[in-house]
Amino acid sequence: MARECVVGVDFGTLSGRAVVVAVEDGAELGSAVHEFPHAVIDRELPASGERLPPDWALQDPEDYLEVLREAVPAALQEAGVDAGDVIGVAIDFTASTPLPALADGTPLCRLDDFRERPHAYPKLWKHHAAQEQADRINALAGERGESWLPRYGGRISSEWQFAKALQVLEEDPEVYERMERWVEGADWLVWQLSGEETRNLCTAGYKAIYQDGAFPDRDFLGALDERFAGFVEEKVEGPPLAELGSRVGGLTAQAAEWTGLPEGIAVAAGNVDAHVTAPAARAIDPGQLLLVMGTSTCHIINGEQPAEVPGMCGVVQGGVVPGLWGYEAGQSGVGDIFAWFVDNAVPPAYHDAARAAGVDLHTHLSELAGRQRVGQHGLVVLDWHSGNRSILVDHELSGLIVGLTLATRAEDVYRALMESTAFGTRKIIEAFESSGVPVRELVAAGGLIKNAVLMQMYADVTRRRIHLIESEQGPALGSAMHAAVAAGVHPDIRAAAAAMGKVRRDVYIPDEERAAAYDALYAHYSNLHDRFANGETMHSLRRLREVTA
Amino acid sequence: MARECVVGVDFGTLSGRAVVVAVEDGAELGSAVHEFPHAVIDRELPASGERLPPDWALQDPEDYLEVLREAVPAALQEAGVDAGDVIGVAIDFTASTPLPALADGTPLCRLDDFRERPHAYPKLWKHHAAQEQADRINALAGERGESWLPRYGGRISSEWQFAKALQVLEEDPEVYERMERWVEGADWLVWQLSGEETRNLCTAGYKAIYQDGAFPDRDFLGALDERFAGFVEEKVEGPPLAELGSRVGGLTAQAAEWTGLPEGIAVAAGNVDAHVTAPAARAIDPGQLLLVMGTSTCHIINGEQPAEVPGMCGVVQGGVVPGLWGYEAGQSGVGDIFAWFVDNAVPPAYHDAARAAGVDLHTHLSELAGRQRVGQHGLVVLDWHSGNRSILVDHELSGLIVGLTLATRAEDVYRALMESTAFGTRKIIEAFESSGVPVRELVAAGGLIKNAVLMQMYADVTRRRIHLIESEQGPALGSAMHAAVAAGVHPDIRAAAAAMGKVRRDVYIPDEERAAAYDALYAHYSNLHDRFANGETMHSLRRLREVTA
Repeated sequence: MARECVVGVDFGTLSGRAVVVAVEDGAELGSAVHEFPHAVIDRELPASGERLPPDWALQDPEDYLEVLREAVPAALQEAGVDAGDVIGVAIDFTASTPLPALADGTPLCRLDDFRERPHAYPKLWKHHAAQEQADRINALAGERGESWLPRYGGRISSEWQFAKALQVLEEDPEVYERMERWVEGADWLVWQLSGEETRNLCTAGYKAIYQDGAFPDRDFLGALDERFAGFVEEKVEGPPLAELGSRVGGLTAQAAEWTGLPEGIAVAAGNVDAHVTAPAARAIDPGQLLLVMGTSTCHIINGEQPAEVPGMCGVVQGGVVPGLWGYEAGQSGVGDIFAWFVDNAVPPAYHDAARAAGVDLHTHLSELAGRQRVGQHGLVVLDWHSGNRSILVDHELSGLIVGLTLATRAEDVYRALMESTAFGTRKIIEAFESSGVPVRELVAAGGLIKNAVLMQMYADVTRRRIHLIESEQGPALGSAMHAAVAAGVHPDIRAAAAAMGKVRRDVYIPDEERAAAYDALYAHYSNLHDRFANGETMHSLRRLREVTA
Repeated sequence: MARECVVGVDFGTLSGRAVVVAVEDGAELGSAVHEFPHAVIDRELPASGERLPPDWALQDPEDYLEVLREAVPAALQEAGVDAGDVIGVAIDFTASTPLPALADGTPLCRLDDFRERPHAYPKLWKHHAAQEQADRINALAGERGESWLPRYGGRISSEWQFAKALQVLEEDPEVYERMERWVEGADWLVWQLSGEETRNLCTAGYKAIYQDGAFPDRDFLGALDERFAGFVEEKVEGPPLAELGSRVGGLTAQAAEWTGLPEGIAVAAGNVDAHVTAPAARAIDPGQLLLVMGTSTCHIINGEQPAEVPGMCGVVQGGVVPGLWGYEAGQSGVGDIFAWFVDNAVPPAYHDAARAAGVDLHTHLSELAGRQRVGQHGLVVLDWHSGNRSILVDHELSGLIVGLTLATRAEDVYRALMESTAFGTRKIIEAFESSGVPVRELVAAGGLIKNAVLMQMYADVTRRRIHLIESEQGPALGSAMHAAVAAGVHPDIRAAAAAMGKVRRDVYIPDEERAAAYDALYAHYSNLHDRFANGETMHSLRRLREVTA
């Protein structure tokens, strides 16, 4: 008998991944990845060859549609299911990745007049060229005491919608003038699938400052730039706010043709990759902190009430699951710090030994580091090599290591780096708890969860049990679950999580003796954290990089 | 016509080097090295196989005599001079390397009853197992306000004579009881050469606390341990104090047989390797700071008056040249920090590139580092990987690096390490100057002076001109000069330095633009230096290494 299925599509930074999932039990029947042909556009604009300034990062929306046309049919084929058994589709996306469009959804960059204008393209989350605009937004919001500011840890990011839109206005007013809609990639894709323009509550809340039923008001926007006063009314507001897991519409004939899926099946509201992973890992109850651990780590937790947590990325009502306040926090460098170390600071003998053992260098170093007693290396690291998101919100901080001796070896530093990221997570947990958001247990997803030495360290350092997601495609699975809810198979995302979510519980359990030993190291981490948090040393060193002599 | 010659012998940690030098112009006519067969005895005692405790380091005095028997004749042969043209001999030695002997000079370890007793052997300078004794000496001297304590920067070292002698007394009273003389290796060798027991003013002052005409008194020693009260009277005092460059006696028949040198030629007072280098490099006038730059750096300077300089190793009247107050300071880690980095933190691509260029990794990294603007790497290092001698006198400090980002590369860190050692030297210069000992210019000797990137950095960071010694065997040349003075060829060491010393002046001249840029980095170094000087973080991390979990 044919099983009812749903399709989830996860749009990452470099590719999109489609997965076909059974609605009944979450079985992943088939999947396919499609790389974006234009990847990240950060050097020159393909349409004109124009050099882009530093910190720019654009994409081409045609790449997104190619994923629908290529990866979805391929996943269906791998699954070996009949397309007619698919009853819903949902997507998640990087965020904030907004793009300017006409009222009918046509991206501005597709118009002949605008294809050579960089500002007509989607600005990828890691486009960091709107920092000046973000700084002004923060300064003004602070002055005026805007009530939404504390919902974002006191600071909004240059990555988000308003800073990027203001940059468009100021740097290419014609693009700003011509654009009729300013829309997140997630919502734009849902629009392409369903024909319905919406604003999903997740990106609206975390990236577009939608709080207590409203976007920032006309007064505030006009005070930033009088031409910006009507931004929300004219280019953002209007379409319905869509609750996560809600059915936005039926799949259009056009989208059915692209994907090979049946016309009219449920299309769910858009979502964000990290947030959508929470139900996939069954980490949606208050007290359960989801860690999505990759190059960086994203922390997601639900609470019963809104609270002001220092350095959090944001708290949004219904931002993760309807009915709860969803909190997001982040560590800006985790796996990328380990990768930097392995690429830049490990001598040949370790490369040779790893090769001889048939393992990669991370595995080899982790194995060596894992043999050590806690504190044996005598080192403490501040894990700020790419700044600190939570709890300090300062991207100009930098990494520090103390305790080096002539006896320090590569595995010592590698272990100290791993520990420092665990200490960074503990700081975030403490910030949540002292703000009234309890953290009872950890649920981990992402590429780093395969490292048993690292994961045991997190359990010991945080004194929390760690459960692991049992899927290698958490976001796409999470999207598929939202599709199942939108299709009416499960009454809500909680029920979908119970039926389709996948978690292996209690994989790592804290050891009290090691935890106590880590307390002593963590005390040093905290001291250094507080001593260097003001950036006095690190900001100045960063500025010295620019000095000529 | 035959030239008059002298022989200098430099006794290092692992070998002895003899050099034959023309008295007239310092021409180095021939040299030879002989490795000590027993090298450093730090694992087990060869005579018994007994395991030695940690931090022990002994030597075998027969090895020293072998140098006389092997290296001196070989150097003569290489020089192609007639032994009859040699008119004097002098030696320098590591310090403090004391040994217990009978009244006739026989080392205790040569007696059958004592050859299996570790305490009967010479304790090499780097024997660090008398720290507990040194701590007690310092505490008691502080309590009693002993006037000699400030002459040693407020702290005497576990490496020196009194701590080591007290360790002998407490751990092997029979050895202590049996020993009739407690004598520095330098003085013991002069005794073997001349038949005269002396105490040279250099080691007496720097290593045996001889100040203002006296060793520590009976009261003080008895307060440490009542059995120790008579130590100076019974085992140290008695033999004449010998001024540097003075003739101690004539070469004995026995020593003439060992060395092939003529019986009766002048034997000069003993000396210490770093101190004896000062006249060889013509760095004996007040205002000239000699840097002997190797695995560690030793700083020697003469002043007109005694002054109390924080963290100096010692100030001794006539300790470097008669008539002036000689100051010694030190950086405990310099070249060994660079070696540690190259061995432990440089990825394969750099090894490959160095090999392809046919240079060693230090040269390759220095070349890359040398291309950078000052401050470009955004890093600051505390160069305390093997503790800090001057100005903090704390061997339990450790290294620190701040400013790391994902863009940090090996040459960045290597450059920051080099800079940190230059900053360490600047701290020492500032300590001298603020204590009333002016430092006008630097004269550098030792293996690191071949690194032009490093040396220019020192000139820029310190805003001082740097002159380089023009001999690769500075200590042996310095000893030879003292032999020439003892033989009466030159009236004093100043005249010998003028005739035989070798220095290339103004090899490195500070660049004001770079110096100003370094000021900004040095301000950070100073801040970190002061913040971490109390050892609160670093001592505790060191203790954590011992904790088990």
